[in-house]
Amino acid sequence: MWVIEQGNYMGQIDVWDRGVQFGDGLFETMNVTAGVVANLDAHLLRLRSGLKVLSIHEPHQDVKELITQYLTTFVEKTRQAEGVLKIIVTRGSSARGYGFTSDILPNITAFYSPKPNYSQQAYKEGIDVTLCKTQCSVQAQLAGLKHLNRLENVLAKQELTDEFEGLMCNHLGLVIEGTMSNVFFERDNVLVTPKLNLSGIKGIIRSCVIDECKKQSINMLEQDVSLPLLDSFSMGFICNSVMGIIPIKNINEHVFSIGPITRLLQTRINNKENHE
Amino acid sequence: MWVIEQGNYMGQIDVWDRGVQFGDGLFETMNVTAGVVANLDAHLLRLRSGLKVLSIHEPHQDVKELITQYLTTFVEKTRQAEGVLKIIVTRGSSARGYGFTSDILPNITAFYSPKPNYSQQAYKEGIDVTLCKTQCSVQAQLAGLKHLNRLENVLAKQELTDEFEGLMCNHLGLVIEGTMSNVFFERDNVLVTPKLNLSGIKGIIRSCVIDECKKQSINMLEQDVSLPLLDSFSMGFICNSVMGIIPIKNINEHVFSIGPITRLLQTRINNKENHE
Repeated sequence: MWVIEQGNYMGQIDVWDRGVQFGDGLFETMNVTAGVVANLDAHLLRLRSGLKVLSIHEPHQDVKELITQYLTTFVEKTRQAEGVLKIIVTRGSSARGYGFTSDILPNITAFYSPKPNYSQQAYKEGIDVTLCKTQCSVQAQLAGLKHLNRLENVLAKQELTDEFEGLMCNHLGLVIEGTMSNVFFERDNVLVTPKLNLSGIKGIIRSCVIDECKKQSINMLEQDVSLPLLDSFSMGFICNSVMGIIPIKNINEHVFSIGPITRLLQTRINNKENHE
Repeated sequence: MWVIEQGNYMGQIDVWDRGVQFGDGLFETMNVTAGVVANLDAHLLRLRSGLKVLSIHEPHQDVKELITQYLTTFVEKTRQAEGVLKIIVTRGSSARGYGFTSDILPNITAFYSPKPNYSQQAYKEGIDVTLCKTQCSVQAQLAGLKHLNRLENVLAKQELTDEFEGLMCNHLGLVIEGTMSNVFFERDNVLVTPKLNLSGIKGIIRSCVIDECKKQSINMLEQDVSLPLLDSFSMGFICNSVMGIIPIKNINEHVFSIGPITRLLQTRINNKENHE
């Protein structure tokens, strides 16, 4: 684990860092297999685009080079070639208050964690999903971004008991995403995923799925998914960068089966990244 | 400045602190005059109530005692008896991911800053306010709380050029608050402030104003303030714990005058805390 504050490697974060103060930054959670970051370019592209939206300066360092160097050294030392690499980029440190000066420099922090142990059974038979009471906030300017304001995901996650994932809606009654995943539904050879123009995070695997659908000529729609529409689906999956694609077995009492598109995408996307 | 992590005083924040990771915590910004924190009990009450809503454990330490001891020592050493004390309480540190174990212990951080230099003119003649494009998110469960997910305030603040404050609405077209203040409007001996059941922060001075209205038998309404309704007001003020009450001189091109209730409340509330 390292922290780079204005070019210096450090072990802890400055208390004036605006990540701590306001969640003023972005993060990326990346799957590492055999010492290699999956979809690294896509993660860095999303990061750069998010920084632009938030008017956070681009780090002076070459983030790709930093990550690659860090990972090589880390894996050589620890032999932990399988893991999860999380990086946080904040706007930097400033005096008290929401304002900041134009010379502020971003801080980068990286964290390496063991990979969660998802069961073969989950990938084959699917997982239990519940509908969370905690809502995704509606804020179009921040929607889609993987920013650090994640209290709603924390609260939604707390609602889970034995279920693997919880589905979150916004106050408009639209299904948005899982607490830690994006969601796709399947019916009559069409894949549907919620539009994320008002709420939610646009995940990297979500983009991979959309791209793969184009390649495979699978009909894919980004649309509003209201709760009544959700009831009309009985096939689907959740996905994120760490777990890849995992089918839904049920949402509360509503039983799901595993559709052919889900299986095809599991083969195409999970295998590419060596998920189970 | 100090950080108390699980009982130890420290100078920096653990990178695994959930404040950094998710904005998973709350803060209080307090006015210090002659070495004494204004409205300390009200701040601590709001903090405790927010911790409860977020299911964050109460700190084992007596926060009031901590603050008082810290401040006494600090003021003795530095002679900075006028300032702003900010404290952050996060859920604590945990492994990667939104989940956490039940034995997690909250981290407390405190920061002391110089008091901003608000002009006498601002208190007498009022300040310029602009209408921000950045919206307050709509999320009923988090509304009212002074939590650490404050990206929208950061972005709104960036919109300001020469104006003192910016007014934020939510996506429903309701006026909510300033980037760093609550807002009240005055007309025909009635005071109106936006309902904060869907968006915004319930400030301590906002509560003081509401209480003072009861004491003074001033009619006060918490209600939805739509943009057309906003246009119908031409008196009002903004307030927060650091600046107290400052009248609005104009909102964009809409000129405001200073109403009798605003003047009365300035006398009652600002004087109590030795604001200008």
